[in-house]
Amino acid sequence: MDRREGVVSIDYAGFVQEQIAELRRVVGDATAINALSGGVDSSVVTVLGHRALGRRLRTVFVDNGLMREGEPRQVVETFAGLGIPVELIDAREEFLSALRGLTDPEQKRQAITDAFYARVFGRLVRESGAKFLLHGTILTDIEETVAGIKRQHNILAQLGIDPQSAYGYTVLEPLKTLRKDGVRAVAGVLGLPPAVTRRIPFPGPALAARIVGEVTPQRLAVVRAATAIVEEELAGTGAFQYLAVLLGDLATGIRNDRREFGQIVVVRCIESVDARTASATRIPWETLERICSRIVAIPGVNRCLYDLTPKPPATVEYV
Amino acid sequence: MDRREGVVSIDYAGFVQEQIAELRRVVGDATAINALSGGVDSSVVTVLGHRALGRRLRTVFVDNGLMREGEPRQVVETFAGLGIPVELIDAREEFLSALRGLTDPEQKRQAITDAFYARVFGRLVRESGAKFLLHGTILTDIEETVAGIKRQHNILAQLGIDPQSAYGYTVLEPLKTLRKDGVRAVAGVLGLPPAVTRRIPFPGPALAARIVGEVTPQRLAVVRAATAIVEEELAGTGAFQYLAVLLGDLATGIRNDRREFGQIVVVRCIESVDARTASATRIPWETLERICSRIVAIPGVNRCLYDLTPKPPATVEYV
Repeated sequence: MDRREGVVSIDYAGFVQEQIAELRRVVGDATAINALSGGVDSSVVTVLGHRALGRRLRTVFVDNGLMREGEPRQVVETFAGLGIPVELIDAREEFLSALRGLTDPEQKRQAITDAFYARVFGRLVRESGAKFLLHGTILTDIEETVAGIKRQHNILAQLGIDPQSAYGYTVLEPLKTLRKDGVRAVAGVLGLPPAVTRRIPFPGPALAARIVGEVTPQRLAVVRAATAIVEEELAGTGAFQYLAVLLGDLATGIRNDRREFGQIVVVRCIESVDARTASATRIPWETLERICSRIVAIPGVNRCLYDLTPKPPATVEYV
Repeated sequence: MDRREGVVSIDYAGFVQEQIAELRRVVGDATAINALSGGVDSSVVTVLGHRALGRRLRTVFVDNGLMREGEPRQVVETFAGLGIPVELIDAREEFLSALRGLTDPEQKRQAITDAFYARVFGRLVRESGAKFLLHGTILTDIEETVAGIKRQHNILAQLGIDPQSAYGYTVLEPLKTLRKDGVRAVAGVLGLPPAVTRRIPFPGPALAARIVGEVTPQRLAVVRAATAIVEEELAGTGAFQYLAVLLGDLATGIRNDRREFGQIVVVRCIESVDARTASATRIPWETLERICSRIVAIPGVNRCLYDLTPKPPATVEYV
């Protein structure tokens, strides 16, 4: 170990070997299951799990209909390239019907959590016969739960499995001693591609966190198209995170000499170290104007706004 | 007259003398009334009318509760400085109750028009005994009515006065041969101060055009405070128009480590020659960031966005 200025340099290659050995020892000849979201935590767990267990680990990617343009296919292909089979579960209708009619941010978030744990993934876990569940919990998740910032997550209870009566179910959390930087270092040791390790942060509720008001297929299509434009135009900026938000309000506009009411898209791009505080990026005006002209070409959209607000008092997402 | 490149240079001092003589000739010993909004058209009509008729013209300023910070008092003081008495009519409660519960943009605009013509100003005209009404119609208003862009305005009908039975009522429109540049030139000849001649465009429905959703006293206070900040910070830019808009949506934020839902203010600043087309001003980032930090200090507001959209497809205002 190399110590400088209080920073402990961890032997991540050794960490990987230890975790693989531990997963093999605990799971033995049994089978395990995990859900891959495409984020770095669940991606690292997936690779560690497959190195340890091979075909005895079943990895699913749940398409909730709230993902970005082409994202489900890209994630499956990325892991196919690493020799890891990922099962794509089409649950779009299940999530969209759970969200129908909801406009309250908390109710929307809860509906997504419930659809995922209690219904789609819960059913997969119970039907799989697996007794081990691999989960990408990191140290920050545990700390924030203890501090009361995150809700207490008893994952078995969320899955509809009673930990008392369901003797034999075990949750394995190989990353629970690491923070985000440690997970990224492990991802590098495992040879995960930049598409995974450098992926900009993306929230659990996915594009639903970026729709103010009701989530409908039409509104998802608008925010998905706007997100693709923003990600393409801002990929080279080196910013911490960039995104598009669809507001619920309509604004007046004029097209072909006729008055119309159109949808409003907000572009957000931030500079941050750890997402706890952030400031709006000073994007070149040429880039902002090009993004605006592309976004107001999306049918139904006639306004494009840039979010100037630091965190605090704003958050990164809108819902 | 001096002609160059097809532009006819008009003798505006002569125009002023002709209009004053014509008003005296037509009104004779009778009395007249007019409503002053603070904009350049009604300001010029007010000065022409008082030069022609003196105390036989009664000028009212209707405070609809939708004006900017300190605006009613400032307009009255400006005209007092020119020796012209302006009667301040407090109609705030009448307009606010007409707007209560309305969220549809067209219904809001109609409610303001009805409250002004059919109720407040109509009542003043009928009670005044005046047979002449001075109105700031300009050539562009007539052209846009003919072209079907503006609704047909029969001002007597709007005032609840039947032109057939009310024989003797006459509407006088001394500026109906001028466009906006001509009105500004006449304002210069009349010695109107820059507060009037250089006033940035301000819409008829006033701050109600800048509130998406219901107009309430609380929401008016927010957009009024934001407008004062934007006007103070952008006065020196030379931009054609700048304004603040309060959206109806709420966004998540974080203050004192607690999650909150806050109001969203949009800053709009445009470059334009004639308001028919416009582009967003490239404001220095330091200025935008200062405006943002002042706006999110308004209680209840936690987002500040900058509108990037040209006209078309956006309009200048939001309602």
